[in-house]
Amino acid sequence: MQTMMKQRAPTAAGKQAQAPRVAPKVGRARSSVVAMAAPAAAKAAAPAISRDLVDKCINAIRFLAIDAVNKSKSGHPGMPMGCAPMGYLLWNEVMKYNPKNPDWFNRDRFVLSAGHGSMFQYSMLHLTGYDSVPMDQVKSFRQWGSLTPGHPENFVTPGVEVTTGPLGQGICNAVGLAVAEAHLAARFNKPDVKPIVDHYTYCILGDGCMMEGISNEACSLAGHWGLGKLIALYDDNKISIDGHTDISFTEDVAKRYEALGWHVIHVINGNTDVDGLRSAIAQAKAVKDKPTLIKVSTLIGYGSPNKADTHDVHGAPLGADETAATRKNLGWEHGEFEVPQDVYDVFRQAITRGADAEAEWKAACAEYKAKYPKEWAEFEALTSGKLPENWEAALPTFKSEDKPLATRQHSQTMLNALAPVLPGLVGGSADLAPSNLTLMKISGDFQKGSYAERNIRFGVREHAMGAICNGIALHKSGLIPYCATFYIFTDYMRNAMRMSALSEAGVVYVMTHDSIGLGEDGPTHQPIEHLASFRAMPNMLMMRPAGGNETAGAYKVAIASRKRPTTIALSRQNMPNLPGTSIEGVAKGGYTIHDCAGTPDVILMGTGSELELAAAAAATLEKEGKKVRVVSFPCWELFEEQSAEYKESVLPSSVTARVSVEAATSFGWAKYIGLKGKHVGIDDFGASAPANILYEKFGITAAKVVEAAKAVMA
Amino acid sequence: MQTMMKQRAPTAAGKQAQAPRVAPKVGRARSSVVAMAAPAAAKAAAPAISRDLVDKCINAIRFLAIDAVNKSKSGHPGMPMGCAPMGYLLWNEVMKYNPKNPDWFNRDRFVLSAGHGSMFQYSMLHLTGYDSVPMDQVKSFRQWGSLTPGHPENFVTPGVEVTTGPLGQGICNAVGLAVAEAHLAARFNKPDVKPIVDHYTYCILGDGCMMEGISNEACSLAGHWGLGKLIALYDDNKISIDGHTDISFTEDVAKRYEALGWHVIHVINGNTDVDGLRSAIAQAKAVKDKPTLIKVSTLIGYGSPNKADTHDVHGAPLGADETAATRKNLGWEHGEFEVPQDVYDVFRQAITRGADAEAEWKAACAEYKAKYPKEWAEFEALTSGKLPENWEAALPTFKSEDKPLATRQHSQTMLNALAPVLPGLVGGSADLAPSNLTLMKISGDFQKGSYAERNIRFGVREHAMGAICNGIALHKSGLIPYCATFYIFTDYMRNAMRMSALSEAGVVYVMTHDSIGLGEDGPTHQPIEHLASFRAMPNMLMMRPAGGNETAGAYKVAIASRKRPTTIALSRQNMPNLPGTSIEGVAKGGYTIHDCAGTPDVILMGTGSELELAAAAAATLEKEGKKVRVVSFPCWELFEEQSAEYKESVLPSSVTARVSVEAATSFGWAKYIGLKGKHVGIDDFGASAPANILYEKFGITAAKVVEAAKAVMA
Repeated sequence: MQTMMKQRAPTAAGKQAQAPRVAPKVGRARSSVVAMAAPAAAKAAAPAISRDLVDKCINAIRFLAIDAVNKSKSGHPGMPMGCAPMGYLLWNEVMKYNPKNPDWFNRDRFVLSAGHGSMFQYSMLHLTGYDSVPMDQVKSFRQWGSLTPGHPENFVTPGVEVTTGPLGQGICNAVGLAVAEAHLAARFNKPDVKPIVDHYTYCILGDGCMMEGISNEACSLAGHWGLGKLIALYDDNKISIDGHTDISFTEDVAKRYEALGWHVIHVINGNTDVDGLRSAIAQAKAVKDKPTLIKVSTLIGYGSPNKADTHDVHGAPLGADETAATRKNLGWEHGEFEVPQDVYDVFRQAITRGADAEAEWKAACAEYKAKYPKEWAEFEALTSGKLPENWEAALPTFKSEDKPLATRQHSQTMLNALAPVLPGLVGGSADLAPSNLTLMKISGDFQKGSYAERNIRFGVREHAMGAICNGIALHKSGLIPYCATFYIFTDYMRNAMRMSALSEAGVVYVMTHDSIGLGEDGPTHQPIEHLASFRAMPNMLMMRPAGGNETAGAYKVAIASRKRPTTIALSRQNMPNLPGTSIEGVAKGGYTIHDCAGTPDVILMGTGSELELAAAAAATLEKEGKKVRVVSFPCWELFEEQSAEYKESVLPSSVTARVSVEAATSFGWAKYIGLKGKHVGIDDFGASAPANILYEKFGITAAKVVEAAKAVMA
Repeated sequence: MQTMMKQRAPTAAGKQAQAPRVAPKVGRARSSVVAMAAPAAAKAAAPAISRDLVDKCINAIRFLAIDAVNKSKSGHPGMPMGCAPMGYLLWNEVMKYNPKNPDWFNRDRFVLSAGHGSMFQYSMLHLTGYDSVPMDQVKSFRQWGSLTPGHPENFVTPGVEVTTGPLGQGICNAVGLAVAEAHLAARFNKPDVKPIVDHYTYCILGDGCMMEGISNEACSLAGHWGLGKLIALYDDNKISIDGHTDISFTEDVAKRYEALGWHVIHVINGNTDVDGLRSAIAQAKAVKDKPTLIKVSTLIGYGSPNKADTHDVHGAPLGADETAATRKNLGWEHGEFEVPQDVYDVFRQAITRGADAEAEWKAACAEYKAKYPKEWAEFEALTSGKLPENWEAALPTFKSEDKPLATRQHSQTMLNALAPVLPGLVGGSADLAPSNLTLMKISGDFQKGSYAERNIRFGVREHAMGAICNGIALHKSGLIPYCATFYIFTDYMRNAMRMSALSEAGVVYVMTHDSIGLGEDGPTHQPIEHLASFRAMPNMLMMRPAGGNETAGAYKVAIASRKRPTTIALSRQNMPNLPGTSIEGVAKGGYTIHDCAGTPDVILMGTGSELELAAAAAATLEKEGKKVRVVSFPCWELFEEQSAEYKESVLPSSVTARVSVEAATSFGWAKYIGLKGKHVGIDDFGASAPANILYEKFGITAAKVVEAAKAVMA
């Protein structure tokens, strides 16, 4: 580990005391320790503005946050107050971005993993001139309809890349953004022209993010992949909600990150040592083959004479008295929400700088286009975010005489049919590729040295996998990430999946082994409540296709849904390609695959591997003279979006004799079968035995469907 | 890091080649490297049996696993084949246990975190004479109704402590078991008598467990707490399902664990170096103030000439040919499922050894009892697992004129009312104690040096928190673990919660900030689908109490449910203590809190903070002459368990005009409101704004309930 400053002698675990633990009582403190000279190659030029003005800029960030949190009577001032120097440097000297075109492709990406410190990010967006955060939005912090919600939300605020707040997600999104950059750079850049894909990903994360397991997962991958353009700044302020982190967090973070393969630097005084920070970032950029963690020791709420370095300043307004004391302490003579013109004059240079940077990039693109027209066309088509014309024609269809297969096998067919026509398709499995069947055969592995490849090996890291895919999707460069594990292990990655749904990241979740049909692995591996749990989640398409046509249909919907994630539950075991199943049917969510003349005596509904039980039961009942309709229900959300007429045509209100069959909980089915209906399924945990035995023992059979149908018709 | 052997020169990351990567072709290989002399204090005596017999014992473990997996045509032989020497040592020399009394209190605990290698554990239980695993059970591996399911399940197989399989859970359970031991030892042991609480916790975990973030969370805590009696053996076989771990896992695990505060030892040849393993375990035991990780480099499927060190032997039977080749290679001349008598003679000494150890412990208990009768009575009462008589009398009740409070505040009252009368109550929050209000004021913090205290500081580590609590519960010593975070972050810990439900661990999940009512933090923090998702989970009691009486009722149920976990969703915001709410009502899951004469025109149902909206709507409707029943629905699972008569009495089939109100998804409510009912709630994500504004904007108000009631009555 490199250390930017002379270190004091090591102290007891959990009581690392290198950073001053008391807020200085002077207006503005200069670092009293001497920065180590940075290597010449990594030396960063200091800007030609006075230190006084630098400090004024930094304090402007602090007071915007203080004032906004005070006004909204809610929020987290401590993080912005401690991290303001990082903000100043990143936005004023380091990062490349265009405030007037927040979506400029080649911008550096910034992620505030410590999302509760959202006013930090809004302060920066405001100061540097983003149209999304004028002063009235700063003043509307955390209010209904504002562009400045409690945590950063990419779908609300232009200039915010991803949605953070649930701790640890952001750093994983940042890994995903860096993966996207590395991948596209390797695919498109050419040695003899300026790169057209070339940006860094910066992230600020705090102690909370560091404690979450998800961050260790993603950072282990980032180290493995050697993502040299990922630079994470760790706001080491040693305060979390319960108080000082020494009550639960005394590990050696820097050493852990070294173990994960990261380049680690320590800036001991992040409160005032702008030069040290500048030099650290320059060194980070100089190391090309490893991601860098800059551990920046700060005081939370720096500048607040009575609350700095305490939990009090973490998640509550400073209040009038302490704000006045902080103004005095930091020598800030400006009113509430007042930004001095000379501060604006510094920060708003970002507008010209950004326009110039974008113009320079466009020139590079023009040069590239001239020399590599074919590659440019590919690049342009991909990054347009539009799907290639007629891509869906690649999806195969199946006849009922085609061989019964598991839907995971059909899924493999679809992925491999789509891989050639969808150049943006990238993804992989959490160490279950041979079971999930998710490898694209036309591609190799995305690895250090082969970033242009499209199969990603996530290892046994489900939660990070989801969050990394969110980052890839929200890179907004036309990449379509998919990821896979056993369906049961969505329990490990549920928050990342929810964040896909919330932040409109169209990730495709390929979830195999979707019921007790997986057999011998037993109840730890058998989903029961998972279909219900995702059907209940807003903005998530939960698909459970039956056979080849419906698997094709599920992929058609999933790929087309670029702002809505899709979870596809797929079987381990074989099932037939039932007559009546279709790609078009899937798009409606629920549809009749087998019908009778006139009004049905009973409607049988099923999904996935159990649809065949409904069909078999129908055949039996028809032999007994009953009129039976069979409805396939691959996606409840899409069915709900159909017209009232369509829904009534599939499930006429007059027919109350209804049975559903699904090797899963009955929970939720009452919506379609009503109070009188019956569900053939399983409301308890499964068991370890061969799959056919389990279906028999748990009573999920055509005979039981027949029995239930007779009961509801009685 | 200490290394037990001379190391070869370091090799490229991910290609550590210290362990022989090729299975020896000889019948039995001796280590050719010289073990470093262990420190005298830590020296372990080798047993007085020949090395030939030791190897025979080890091979017996291997072949039981090979044969059982072959017979069931399903399972994982590779892990038991590689780890057999660890099994031999742990069960024959190291661990203290009584096969004829698997529940003996003072036994060492063993956790197979790499649960897919379950035949390893069943082999050991069989060989050492547990009644739960006679040979016919070995032969019934993974079959319906057997005691040898696909993954170890504590609720099926006596001798199995916890349920493993979902990777990473087991090592966290082991941390919980070690926490329980440390806590009870500190509370009860006395310096002048032999300890009555004194055991180690051993765990074998693999590469998969190591990659999961949850293990980093728990091991960070274990290091922080300095759990010296936790010894984890890391089966470093470098193979996972996708192939060699170098495709996704090249971090320096040993260094990471050192950073986490662990004592780390490396045994380079775990396949045959029994002496090295023995010495490592002795050294681990000698280090009292840190948990130890013994990195044991092994070959997966050791002994299989063609499949060892490959993914082929991970999760599939060896098959007849390769089994024959392995028999030849390891010089194993015995038939399928044949265990030589001399092997049984060695292992079954565990029976006498175990009886002696238990007798010795009982003698120590007798001495303790004589000297410390009061403490002994406490110990006996606690570890009986029975709740103290009349404990529930400590729960306060409330009148409607009592001050409106948030249910999180009532929860704090309950925890502090129960803490003095339930000496087994231990727990805490994932760094949200001041928000979750979960501190027991009569106790200090469980920390290194204060293990006797009962408040646990988990840090921001939700997933590990749940799994650690499972370990504490399954220590089966009368401890009642609770844990807390914001309800939304159950998404981070869902698999651990499911494991509570599956493995019958009566953990109490205290989940505050249970709806959009949390306000400004916005949609990343606002649960929508969470109530539905837990109502759908088998064996989980999902509680959402309204006011003080129902919060008391929720705790009454939760504490009494020692084999079923309870999740209590609690509000951030205040609500009244409604007339009619009661502790007794909660026990029925759903009950009438306000009624009319005769058959109601409409039934209004609500939970938690929205029950008052139902009550207010009822008042309005009654003024207009309607007959209204109001039903509180704090726990659907308990309601479902009531008699058909009771359920019909609360929700008469004849009354189809029904409205539910809950600041959450409508998903699931159709079960009670039917196809004609209406739900007043929110099916999309929330937003960032003050809570009262959100309720208005999302239309969750008494007026909307009235409107819905009128619609369903029309």
